[in-house]
Amino acid sequence: MRNYITENRIRGTRLLQKLVQEPSTRGNESGAQAVIVEKCRELGLEMDIWEIGGEGLLAHEAFCSDRKDFRGNPNAVGILRGTGGGKSMILNGHIDVVPAGDNNDWDLDPFSGHIECGKLYGRGSTDMKGGTASLLMAMEAIKNSGIKLKGDVIFQSVIEEESGGAGTLAAVLREYKADGAIIPEPTNMKLFPKQQGSMWFRVSVKGKGAHGGTRYEGVNAIEKAMLVIDRLRKLESDRNARITDPFFKSIPIPIPINIGKIHAGDWPSSVPDLAIIEGRMGVAPNETQENAKLEMLNAINHLCEEDLWLKENSPVLEWFGASWLPGDLDPEHELIEVLSESFINVKNSSPLIEASPWATDGGVLSKVGGVPVVVFGPGVTETAHQANEYIRLEDVFDAAEIIALSLLKWCGVSERK
Amino acid sequence: MRNYITENRIRGTRLLQKLVQEPSTRGNESGAQAVIVEKCRELGLEMDIWEIGGEGLLAHEAFCSDRKDFRGNPNAVGILRGTGGGKSMILNGHIDVVPAGDNNDWDLDPFSGHIECGKLYGRGSTDMKGGTASLLMAMEAIKNSGIKLKGDVIFQSVIEEESGGAGTLAAVLREYKADGAIIPEPTNMKLFPKQQGSMWFRVSVKGKGAHGGTRYEGVNAIEKAMLVIDRLRKLESDRNARITDPFFKSIPIPIPINIGKIHAGDWPSSVPDLAIIEGRMGVAPNETQENAKLEMLNAINHLCEEDLWLKENSPVLEWFGASWLPGDLDPEHELIEVLSESFINVKNSSPLIEASPWATDGGVLSKVGGVPVVVFGPGVTETAHQANEYIRLEDVFDAAEIIALSLLKWCGVSERK
Repeated sequence: MRNYITENRIRGTRLLQKLVQEPSTRGNESGAQAVIVEKCRELGLEMDIWEIGGEGLLAHEAFCSDRKDFRGNPNAVGILRGTGGGKSMILNGHIDVVPAGDNNDWDLDPFSGHIECGKLYGRGSTDMKGGTASLLMAMEAIKNSGIKLKGDVIFQSVIEEESGGAGTLAAVLREYKADGAIIPEPTNMKLFPKQQGSMWFRVSVKGKGAHGGTRYEGVNAIEKAMLVIDRLRKLESDRNARITDPFFKSIPIPIPINIGKIHAGDWPSSVPDLAIIEGRMGVAPNETQENAKLEMLNAINHLCEEDLWLKENSPVLEWFGASWLPGDLDPEHELIEVLSESFINVKNSSPLIEASPWATDGGVLSKVGGVPVVVFGPGVTETAHQANEYIRLEDVFDAAEIIALSLLKWCGVSERK
Repeated sequence: MRNYITENRIRGTRLLQKLVQEPSTRGNESGAQAVIVEKCRELGLEMDIWEIGGEGLLAHEAFCSDRKDFRGNPNAVGILRGTGGGKSMILNGHIDVVPAGDNNDWDLDPFSGHIECGKLYGRGSTDMKGGTASLLMAMEAIKNSGIKLKGDVIFQSVIEEESGGAGTLAAVLREYKADGAIIPEPTNMKLFPKQQGSMWFRVSVKGKGAHGGTRYEGVNAIEKAMLVIDRLRKLESDRNARITDPFFKSIPIPIPINIGKIHAGDWPSSVPDLAIIEGRMGVAPNETQENAKLEMLNAINHLCEEDLWLKENSPVLEWFGASWLPGDLDPEHELIEVLSESFINVKNSSPLIEASPWATDGGVLSKVGGVPVVVFGPGVTETAHQANEYIRLEDVFDAAEIIALSLLKWCGVSERK
């Protein structure tokens, strides 16, 4: 594997560059999927390309999206069919990327794919087109080395991960199951058997309008929203104090509550009568989403007991948009063992095994699909969703080799050239 | 005067209703101005209708607007020419109204002009078309009672008050001066010889973006903005503790700092890297705008000393959009005396004399035009800029009578029929 991957670095790099140069933000995934499909066809995979949707998906309890129409931006699955008798493996990567944000924060065009000092830059390079490139390079290495596996390898390039996982849910509902799955999200080459779940929330806080010059006649929704934010911080602190799982021990805030947005007011001289807070609540791997929701509702209700205005004008808590189930694989599972061995083979060191600080499609794949999932990938965690996102190409190649070795072991080798 | 006004209540009410039914938000003042002009022509006033603008206005140090083009929505001035030998009076009302806000907060259409239990409802009824109606009724009462005044009465219906006073500034620069001025803003029938000035500010607070799941790798601009808001509250408290003017004694916060807007973030799962706060800072009648600006800058600079992130990423303070000069008339001025006497005549009680909690065009008229100004009007202060804004018609008629009597005394009567 090593030889093939080393000799084909330029080819792998070019693939990743092409993927990054397709700005596959939500609703614009088709260009990047075309690059994926071309590569899969070159590898001779059995292809299944379909536009997700339909009643079965939209009505599923784990479906979570503010879109109902996904036409024009398909999911793509490519199967490297095994000869039989081996364990199967799903290799899952999402093709959607978060928005680039303010262009001025980037040193270069956000979708440049520029390479410098061994790093490839651009939105999606780390999260997670670099991981997807590793998957395709691993499959290519196996195929072009003339190896035939016993078990099936099911490669999935899905949409909608960043907004709730509808793409992977659609693949699960299309009956793509396997004995194990690897999702190469940007873990800094760590293994994550457990993943934090998460959900989006919105809190609408009422105030009472007034002229700013007589602001004491109104109630400023921003000031009341600040009380809510303070209380959510306290809730975050209480929830994290309870986390004792050693896999979280190096993570400062295992299950954060992120305040992502606040919008209030439309006139500087008026007291705003409504503030809207939006954010993301982390869910512990062994916790249900329902429990987390209840804790937030209780926290807000307790706050209302302490503030007369809020008591009579309760903030409204909603759960909207994205939602990801947590993932919780036994760290002793064979899948961790196989990946760890391959890691040691390639890197001459042991992998770090932790719990992920964010949710992935691993939640849906394991909780709905019943597939054991490990999250492991080459991306640089800190640069995900940031300006000047990048990935180290060396890690992309190492991850490709580790995944290829793991496939040989997991699926079993039927024949070599 | 009383008889005329009493007998013509329906006519006065209909005028106010027509004014309210023209939604003269910023940039849409022409319809309401047409109603004004029609009325002025009916009263036989010498008319001057002009579109404000030009270098003299735009380059003036007191000019404050984010618009440069005011075409299509003119100022209107109508002069009731005196016979000579008397003091002149400016009667000034602004025709622009603030936006209606959320229609759902209104029980009726915001521009209904609906009358119920002696109240007339609609955006602008109180602020300040009711006051303008009082002015026109006062002039009509004098004219139709066959009285000729010695001094000129200069009626002004101006645009742009709600966003900085460019309309009144344009009238001042057109050389409309007088020995006194009444501005019937909604004072709840109080006399305001002093008026708070105000200015709009914007504070941009930087954060550092990150994925919400690893929010500890970023710096949340909303949390930093909350520190700024807390500091501005402290500044407000410090500034108001210094106000000893007895005219402010019944006002809870004489010179408020209103936080009118906050906008931060565009994705619930991301740590926001920028928060924008906008608001309005009150300026004391005897204070300069420059001093108030400096105090806010110092407050933010002090905060930066206490927070490492803010020290290295100083919030940016800007002054933008609207700005109103404070007004500061000697409460012993003859204008106050004349209005007080008329008030007592009509109401059989003494007027309350206070400082206004908000800025008016009186700042420009007095500080730039050198005209002694009193603010006195029939509107209901608490309903200005609010949903379900209304005015009590009784107060409109009383104010008309008080203003008419004041004109007789101030300008002097040349002949009666």
